[in-house]
Amino acid sequence: MKGCYIMKKEVKEKLNHVKEHITKIEELNKLLALAYWDMKVSMPKKALEQRSNTLGYLSGEMFKLSTGDEVKGFIEYFMPIFDKLSVIDKAMIRNLKKNYDETKKIPEQRYKEFTIATSLSEAAWEEAREKDDFKTFEPHLEKMVKFQREFAEYYGYEENKYDALLANYEEGMTVKKLDIIFGELKEGILNILDYIKNSDKKINKDFLEGKFKIKKQKKLSLFLLDKIKFDMEAGRLDETTHPFTTDFGNKDVRITTHYHENDLLSNVFSVIHEGGHGLYEQHISDELIGTGLEHGTSMGIHESQSRFYENIIGRSKEFLKVMLPFIKDEFSNMKNVKLDKFYEAVNYVKPSLIRTEADELTYSLHVIIRYEIEKQLINGEIEVKDLPRIWNEKYLEYLGVEPKTDSEGILQDMHWSAGNFGYFPSYALGNVYGGQFLNKILEENKDAIKNLVDGDLSYINNWLSDNIHKHGAIYTPEDLIKKVTGEKISTKYFLTYLEDKYKSIY
Amino acid sequence: MKGCYIMKKEVKEKLNHVKEHITKIEELNKLLALAYWDMKVSMPKKALEQRSNTLGYLSGEMFKLSTGDEVKGFIEYFMPIFDKLSVIDKAMIRNLKKNYDETKKIPEQRYKEFTIATSLSEAAWEEAREKDDFKTFEPHLEKMVKFQREFAEYYGYEENKYDALLANYEEGMTVKKLDIIFGELKEGILNILDYIKNSDKKINKDFLEGKFKIKKQKKLSLFLLDKIKFDMEAGRLDETTHPFTTDFGNKDVRITTHYHENDLLSNVFSVIHEGGHGLYEQHISDELIGTGLEHGTSMGIHESQSRFYENIIGRSKEFLKVMLPFIKDEFSNMKNVKLDKFYEAVNYVKPSLIRTEADELTYSLHVIIRYEIEKQLINGEIEVKDLPRIWNEKYLEYLGVEPKTDSEGILQDMHWSAGNFGYFPSYALGNVYGGQFLNKILEENKDAIKNLVDGDLSYINNWLSDNIHKHGAIYTPEDLIKKVTGEKISTKYFLTYLEDKYKSIY
Repeated sequence: MKGCYIMKKEVKEKLNHVKEHITKIEELNKLLALAYWDMKVSMPKKALEQRSNTLGYLSGEMFKLSTGDEVKGFIEYFMPIFDKLSVIDKAMIRNLKKNYDETKKIPEQRYKEFTIATSLSEAAWEEAREKDDFKTFEPHLEKMVKFQREFAEYYGYEENKYDALLANYEEGMTVKKLDIIFGELKEGILNILDYIKNSDKKINKDFLEGKFKIKKQKKLSLFLLDKIKFDMEAGRLDETTHPFTTDFGNKDVRITTHYHENDLLSNVFSVIHEGGHGLYEQHISDELIGTGLEHGTSMGIHESQSRFYENIIGRSKEFLKVMLPFIKDEFSNMKNVKLDKFYEAVNYVKPSLIRTEADELTYSLHVIIRYEIEKQLINGEIEVKDLPRIWNEKYLEYLGVEPKTDSEGILQDMHWSAGNFGYFPSYALGNVYGGQFLNKILEENKDAIKNLVDGDLSYINNWLSDNIHKHGAIYTPEDLIKKVTGEKISTKYFLTYLEDKYKSIY
Repeated sequence: MKGCYIMKKEVKEKLNHVKEHITKIEELNKLLALAYWDMKVSMPKKALEQRSNTLGYLSGEMFKLSTGDEVKGFIEYFMPIFDKLSVIDKAMIRNLKKNYDETKKIPEQRYKEFTIATSLSEAAWEEAREKDDFKTFEPHLEKMVKFQREFAEYYGYEENKYDALLANYEEGMTVKKLDIIFGELKEGILNILDYIKNSDKKINKDFLEGKFKIKKQKKLSLFLLDKIKFDMEAGRLDETTHPFTTDFGNKDVRITTHYHENDLLSNVFSVIHEGGHGLYEQHISDELIGTGLEHGTSMGIHESQSRFYENIIGRSKEFLKVMLPFIKDEFSNMKNVKLDKFYEAVNYVKPSLIRTEADELTYSLHVIIRYEIEKQLINGEIEVKDLPRIWNEKYLEYLGVEPKTDSEGILQDMHWSAGNFGYFPSYALGNVYGGQFLNKILEENKDAIKNLVDGDLSYINNWLSDNIHKHGAIYTPEDLIKKVTGEKISTKYFLTYLEDKYKSIY
């Protein structure tokens, strides 16, 4: 008995040491996120080089803490008694080990160089985009691709080199699986698109063509965040060219949006999208602080939350009914718009050039194009210099539209400038997961969406929080989907949702 | 010869190692400053506790890097060959050693606890101020005083315990010296104040009583920063309750101000004051990056720059002539104000309750009151609970006014809430130094101030930059004053400046 007691005490102490160590890693994580957020939101122009060095310094420190002998010691201690740990402690050790194994594979110096190169590359991309000139960005993109090909080799993979990068954003995801999932998705979407092309339905969206004062759009943003219950005392909203979400713990979640005077909806759905990401982080349980699990579990699950709020909630007739009176009050040119017409206009389908402005139906096709390009690029089947041509060809083939300039084509997304290869599939996976969550919610309460007309999102919010958000990274995406829906990933529900929606509109 | 060559190479390499190490310390410095700035400018309310932990973590790391065996090794290596080093390298090693010696004196755990307690104390002070209730702040202030008394013992001192804290802000300054300097200052100021009280001159400042739209005040801020040549591409301006300046390197210098709709001048002189701090940091030579000398050399010298811009420049008739047309354009209620009347109103003397809103003449008396209180408080001659009473008594005695509430008395300044005891004297020292610099500038170019009427501050800017700013912390304040003016600290010039100015007005 006494031996047993001592043993338990020792394990407990060791677990506290692990948490202390992870807390340090999390502090660096927060500082990296803060230095990055500040770079995008606040930093003066001339500070770029100095800030890049700061980011490099932080990532070097992060590397040391994640791969040091201390972590090795923790892993060696806990692996033999892994099965005796609690669910959270198991996940904590698993996650620590995963980071240790993955991070250790990249030579420290190379990773630091990559971090510094990244912030320069991001700045070059911004410049290229302004100048509408791919050439300005090309050498930086080449560097990013080279880094990622090199990193993929370090990480290692079984079947496809690109799998090594996919795993960074969606544990367990492979080209083999994605080819099937995206194949089904593409086919299903093209079928619905065909149906729409053959429909006689005419949708009028002229009333969205006016001017919408930025000041009023800002008021609308706050109204929307309030409606979806984003906590402004534990977060904030700022303006950047490209909307994003970051957090420094669940009490400080920051989202950004952009405003265009001639476009009301761009900000509306950016705010709701980023707000969805933000809710995920705000709802993570305090219990997970210091375990390294106080983050969304994968980018796919993260995008499932943002796109759930943006589309399944945000573009539903029920939520638009909540939003429309506020819009009518603020924008006199919208005064006479009827809810049915607003709903149709918001859900108007037209293949277009810009991913972030795409309608809900064709959006996934934009993602699939990027997936196909990344897969080939990382495997060395195509090269950076050919990208503008390949991009344009694929847009013509899949969406029937062709970019006239680099800015509305290859330069439109920031992901590659930051070296984020393997991220894009998350968006379409998010759509797919979202369909599965919606199905489950409606199984449990068939009026869950209908009841949104009262403007009370508590039921949806609580369901997502209880089933997904609060668990942070305890479960892998595969395990989480299984746990929540009882099934593996399946495109069925998302495609059914799309079909029902668009067949009722068109 | 060869031995000599190798020796030089070794020294050079060692110097590079020192700089690499200092660069890491500077990165932590920048991150501390960023986390602090963000806490004041951007952070959502509920994040306070998490942010306090982050600050605690950073200060712990800073402690380790500043006091570790590596630094000890550097000092042991360089002290025997100190005299052979260049001016900058000497200053770098001296500064490293000083930080090592000072920091090592405080037990790491206590310093970390102090950092965490500080951010909680600052929040409590803000709350107390809003509620106008000293009691809310009292237990935190007691903690701060306890920490500072304890730290003073660790630092050590020869004559007066308070000297140990003064040295943190003004190397070489002591109670013995300050008693003399502040004695002269007080006497000189009270004499001028007597002269003014007996003058028949009536100054009209009714035109400053109107409403001044915040939006227009913001435009005026940018105009003023442009005029004093603050570089907005290497800095920014934000809004906080209490204006301050911070920097993350000379390319990222951030100042804040506050706006009050019924007060035009409060923002004007806050912006110019913080702008003066900002110019100091922006002008620091790139050559000093990575030496630990890339900062202002002391708070007294820093305040000499901010108060030089705020008062000697900002409240001069010449600069007001540059400012007035812009003000007239923006604020219709100022349309008919004549320069002479504006100059008089800006320099109107009236003993008052709030330091930051005090006129240029009585300002130093506010500082002297705080100095006297701090000196007694740190030496245990008075206690925190007695502060509101003592404060009010001193205000009545020195300035002839008595606070009616805690907020307009004891709670007005944030310094104590941050544990900054020994800082206040810097403001009055800044005035004194500023007088000495002005005298020197006029000796070299008697029209330096007169020529400001054209709105071109280049001459002043360059003079301050070349003689003071660019040197960062190479020279101690004592050495710098000697180097620039050829004299030791002297109240003579500042008092003469005040006398000339106020006797010409009154």
